[in-house]
Amino acid sequence: MTRSSGTEDPIRVAVSTVILTLRRDGALQGPAGPSPRIALPLVRRTRDPYQGSWALPGGWLDAEEGLTAAAARTLGETTGLAPSYLEQLYAFGAVDRSPSRVISVIYWALLREEEAAAAVGSDPENVAWFDAAHLPELAFDHARIIEYALWRLRNKAGYSRVAQGFLPPEFTLADLREAYETILGRKLDPANFRRQVDATRTLVPTNAFRTGSHRPARLYRDAADVELADRGPLSPEETSTAETRTS
Amino acid sequence: MTRSSGTEDPIRVAVSTVILTLRRDGALQGPAGPSPRIALPLVRRTRDPYQGSWALPGGWLDAEEGLTAAAARTLGETTGLAPSYLEQLYAFGAVDRSPSRVISVIYWALLREEEAAAAVGSDPENVAWFDAAHLPELAFDHARIIEYALWRLRNKAGYSRVAQGFLPPEFTLADLREAYETILGRKLDPANFRRQVDATRTLVPTNAFRTGSHRPARLYRDAADVELADRGPLSPEETSTAETRTS
Repeated sequence: MTRSSGTEDPIRVAVSTVILTLRRDGALQGPAGPSPRIALPLVRRTRDPYQGSWALPGGWLDAEEGLTAAAARTLGETTGLAPSYLEQLYAFGAVDRSPSRVISVIYWALLREEEAAAAVGSDPENVAWFDAAHLPELAFDHARIIEYALWRLRNKAGYSRVAQGFLPPEFTLADLREAYETILGRKLDPANFRRQVDATRTLVPTNAFRTGSHRPARLYRDAADVELADRGPLSPEETSTAETRTS
Repeated sequence: MTRSSGTEDPIRVAVSTVILTLRRDGALQGPAGPSPRIALPLVRRTRDPYQGSWALPGGWLDAEEGLTAAAARTLGETTGLAPSYLEQLYAFGAVDRSPSRVISVIYWALLREEEAAAAVGSDPENVAWFDAAHLPELAFDHARIIEYALWRLRNKAGYSRVAQGFLPPEFTLADLREAYETILGRKLDPANFRRQVDATRTLVPTNAFRTGSHRPARLYRDAADVELADRGPLSPEETSTAETRTS
């Protein structure tokens, strides 16, 4: 068995995070429009390789921190964002994905629309939010990583309640349908959508209504807490966003 | 931002593979029984740390090979197995999971029962197949990794055709039900199971029957090729089991 000694052929480990949200505000980079769009924050690189290109927020894994902790730390350092939960997406390790050999462990999270809106204006220098359908030139294989994250999101929408990750705790059926339409990239029939949601028995009607320019719409909430993913038997240490060893 | 320099605090990258299959033969380590059991091959470690303990097949990532290629290579070197497809499961990176700092990218594959049976007897020294419910003492965090793989398998059985990965291309409904029962760890009602399978419209009846000590049972095949997972937009280089750079 061959062995990477770590000195002759160093393989380094980085972490990056794909933060996805729905946004409809004009602050978003890309063409404006009335419908919400899937948006994500990117960081402009200030050094080579790919100086000046946009990249996913991230950085190097420290020897003394867990993978999830490193994702949370580097996301905070670069963007100031601190989602309550990060899920591991995939480890990318193609030989030619960077000038040196780098394995990037990618995390992702969904951010509620109002959390993302709160971040506008307080974005650090070199950070901007982009429409996922109109991305600038990206460093490394980050365009492919984002493409993979969006594919996983679309896929997951088919068998889970992932779309609720974009919504506040109480929402109308029209809000939920709009979130699914944005993820799937196509319009859904309102009556069919309502029937499908009713069949899952996962939504609880509240006594509250949203009023406004349209007729009042009932607000719903989920029957259970929704997480982007059930962590299953992963250890707390594997998934904690806190450092796992203080040196 | 802190940086791991690679010389002071080396972080090394390993790959390991969880091969799951159904077995009912007596060659399996653990108590014998008439029902199939989920089984997997383990390798006895011949050096420290954990010398003498059983571990998942795996090894170090080479600087010049992709992650999937490394998983396929190290699986072949240790067990002689060469599944047609390996899927990435998860990257484990807790600080204390090994005496030195090691990130393990874990792959998994399902092996058809007859493929696993063909491997019996030709297992290399230090390789044995174990009942997943009766594992020996394992090195590192490998017990937790296997627990996670089994959880993902049970979960996936709820929304995909993953159980067919254990079966030959043509199978009876009883075969399929038995595979699901083994994955889920509980008996399923035969009539309900048949109705649910019919409702999915994914199985095609063939004109062939299995005969034997019971009354003849019709053989079915899947309407489409079944993969353990759709790879989506992952690049061929990310998923190829062949080396990605020849040096």
